[in-house]
Amino acid sequence: MLYHVRMDVHPPRDIDAAAFDALKAAEKARAQDLQRSGAWRHLWRIAGAYANVSVFDVPDHDALHAILSTLPLFPFMEIEVTPLARHPSALA
Amino acid sequence: MLYHVRMDVHPPRDIDAAAFDALKAAEKARAQDLQRSGAWRHLWRIAGAYANVSVFDVPDHDALHAILSTLPLFPFMEIEVTPLARHPSALA
Amino acid sequence: MLYHVRMDVHPPRDIDAAAFDALKAAEKARAQDLQRSGAWRHLWRIAGAYANVSVFDVPDHDALHAILSTLPLFPFMEIEVTPLARHPSALA
Amino acid sequence: MLYHVRMDVHPPRDIDAAAFDALKAAEKARAQDLQRSGAWRHLWRIAGAYANVSVFDVPDHDALHAILSTLPLFPFMEIEVTPLARHPSALA
Amino acid sequence: MLYHVRMDVHPPRDIDAAAFDALKAAEKARAQDLQRSGAWRHLWRIAGAYANVSVFDVPDHDALHAILSTLPLFPFMEIEVTPLARHPSALA
Amino acid sequence: MLYHVRMDVHPPRDIDAAAFDALKAAEKARAQDLQRSGAWRHLWRIAGAYANVSVFDVPDHDALHAILSTLPLFPFMEIEVTPLARHPSALA
Amino acid sequence: MLYHVRMDVHPPRDIDAAAFDALKAAEKARAQDLQRSGAWRHLWRIAGAYANVSVFDVPDHDALHAILSTLPLFPFMEIEVTPLARHPSALA
Amino acid sequence: MLYHVRMDVHPPRDIDAAAFDALKAAEKARAQDLQRSGAWRHLWRIAGAYANVSVFDVPDHDALHAILSTLPLFPFMEIEVTPLARHPSALA
Amino acid sequence: MLYHVRMDVHPPRDIDAAAFDALKAAEKARAQDLQRSGAWRHLWRIAGAYANVSVFDVPDHDALHAILSTLPLFPFMEIEVTPLARHPSALA
Amino acid sequence: MLYHVRMDVHPPRDIDAAAFDALKAAEKARAQDLQRSGAWRHLWRIAGAYANVSVFDVPDHDALHAILSTLPLFPFMEIEVTPLARHPSALA
Repeated sequence: MLYHVRMDVHPPRDIDAAAFDALKAAEKARAQDLQRSGAWRHLWRIAGAYANVSVFDVPDHDALHAILSTLPLFPFMEIEVTPLARHPSALA
Repeated sequence: MLYHVRMDVHPPRDIDAAAFDALKAAEKARAQDLQRSGAWRHLWRIAGAYANVSVFDVPDHDALHAILSTLPLFPFMEIEVTPLARHPSALA
Repeated sequence: MLYHVRMDVHPPRDIDAAAFDALKAAEKARAQDLQRSGAWRHLWRIAGAYANVSVFDVPDHDALHAILSTLPLFPFMEIEVTPLARHPSALA
Repeated sequence: MLYHVRMDVHPPRDIDAAAFDALKAAEKARAQDLQRSGAWRHLWRIAGAYANVSVFDVPDHDALHAILSTLPLFPFMEIEVTPLARHPSALA
Repeated sequence: MLYHVRMDVHPPRDIDAAAFDALKAAEKARAQDLQRSGAWRHLWRIAGAYANVSVFDVPDHDALHAILSTLPLFPFMEIEVTPLARHPSALA
Repeated sequence: MLYHVRMDVHPPRDIDAAAFDALKAAEKARAQDLQRSGAWRHLWRIAGAYANVSVFDVPDHDALHAILSTLPLFPFMEIEVTPLARHPSALA
Repeated sequence: MLYHVRMDVHPPRDIDAAAFDALKAAEKARAQDLQRSGAWRHLWRIAGAYANVSVFDVPDHDALHAILSTLPLFPFMEIEVTPLARHPSALA
Repeated sequence: MLYHVRMDVHPPRDIDAAAFDALKAAEKARAQDLQRSGAWRHLWRIAGAYANVSVFDVPDHDALHAILSTLPLFPFMEIEVTPLARHPSALA
Repeated sequence: MLYHVRMDVHPPRDIDAAAFDALKAAEKARAQDLQRSGAWRHLWRIAGAYANVSVFDVPDHDALHAILSTLPLFPFMEIEVTPLARHPSALA
Repeated sequence: MLYHVRMDVHPPRDIDAAAFDALKAAEKARAQDLQRSGAWRHLWRIAGAYANVSVFDVPDHDALHAILSTLPLFPFMEIEVTPLARHPSALA
């Protein structure tokens, strides 16, 4: 099933730079693993913002929550989830 | 270039049913043509709403506006456009 | 899967009273059928409002959208859908 | 009487990890006691968020406030309370 | 139990003046009956607005909803309900 | 004259517990004095929130501001003031 | 006492032009009478909007409500009232 | 002086098409006159919306209001005005 | 030209009390100088808030910005500016 | 292609003054380079705010994001991007 997810990242001002770089590297590795597995189907940057729009393809709500809540940057994210149904005018 | 577009349709209460059905059929035909041409890359229904989330792939802002502003249901739509850039963690 | 749904009904001021009563009776019959089938698991009135809070248990987003978008009062409803996951502290 | 309650948890960034784990364990124990007693009738996780939707069944507003305001995570919560009445179309 | 209720009245522009006067007279009679019975404990006009702030004292949510949803002006009202608990610093 | 006042308290996370307890005790003493004098006519807790709804009866805006701005917890409060006029349907 | 009042006028689209002109003339006459009497102390147009910012000087909330609720354009206005106290840095 | 102005056009659903076309032609003629005179310095379409972002260069607030409030489409516009000052990093 | 300005002051919780008192004294002196010069024409306290409503009379936007951005409390202020035009019903 | 960008700067209260001055100087140099290159076509200060309205002229969304996300003050900015299309009434 598909879920539309918007994530806005609010890194704390006083976070240690090296620690945050490590978190970002871990986040990137995780995001790429999930893309390879097919769970994180689309990932786009919102121009001008530290934010992304994504589409996830996972079996159910629990699977989605398990992924999102364990992202390395989850503690610094504001997340909005929208369930996507098939559109009657969609070709594919 | 990619644009994230959310469209919410607010059909007027007192519209003639046959006229509105004709508009919806025209909208569907248009949406499918644009999907075949590659301009309307993704089209999903937001579950529980008369609304969609779409991704368009067009050369520039004028091309996007030309498409959106001539959709048969445009007069009844509330539209929100977000420019999408490449995400540094995206594989594809 | 569970979905939290809030529905606010905005009946048009100038609707024919008998036609609206018929719609409400159809809505009630539909709501009770769906409760009997187990799809509409909870249905509560928000005190002081023409609105309800509901929990649906359906296989996927498409099933949810199929139900909501064919409710007799759907054209007059503002609907907000929230996917519910299992809570780690929940007993049942 | 039934109350719909949404709780969003905003843990402070600089809280001591062990202290926060202890609070979370206390919160879980409290939530489970209240579920066993019947006061906390439903508890669901909102997918993708550090938040829950709950339904409480307590004698009155004072009882609800006494429970919510003494939850171990109360100082870090944003809480929204909605009184639920019986819906005329509800079966149970 | 006490409930804080704010009601904003939005009379339709095209309503028949005599019909609306009759509704307002019925609303006033109802409000005064409910004040005499003790259910509508306080009723204040918000200065500059067609709106009121009220406090109701009724046995439960169903009683509150029964009163509010049958007010003659209910179809034209936007209503916000807030449950009030005893304040630890209140004398009375 | 009557003023409807809503106060939401946002205690800073890092305040010294003993200092805050002293402030709360001073706030309570002040609230009770003002209730005895008749200036703070009603004081209710909003269920589930660190907030109250109050009604003040004071001679004018300056008197109201003098009271609110010297409350011991004023630096931590978000305050909303609404002037209340007599309602034409009010009995008392 | 002083009150800050913002009024936004939303004339209905289908109002009879002559009837609306008569209302505007009556509103202007009323506004000028109230300025002469000293009750409507300031009246400014918000640039680019069918709206004004005003300051009223009246004895109490009831007097303010009596004035505002009988303005000829009141049925088409959205009004926001803010009580003004003396500022400690104000000279006059 | 420069003013940033955003205009959103909300044409009424039931307006006569020929009458609205005439208004749009008048609006266009007016906009082009004002551009030629230098008062309407910039005019851009917001992609996907019946809205524009403009910059006006006029002597004062009264001049701006005189222009905006007499635009042929003014009755159908929602307008937001922001005064622009010189930016210390601007070259021109 | 006249500008309506609302200023909300948000003093940081951890500011040094003596330093803040010095800033407030400087702000007061500045506000009184500007009132004497005629630039700060009106200054009112919003009852119950650490906020004011003001009217400035200055030659242009740059002059307004120069004044506001150098107020001693500017770093702690949220400021909203509205240009005021002459109202057709205003006497003075 | 043109993009309308609003940037609000929220400097952290506890930032080192010299470090922040250095960032501001770097921001100014960057802004002037980009103006000279033609990418940052307009830059205006919003009167009364630590904020600007800008228009960028860049080849695509990626180019815009590359510029905005590397501005020296980017970590302290709230940014809103709006794609601008050609307006049918625009002369130039």
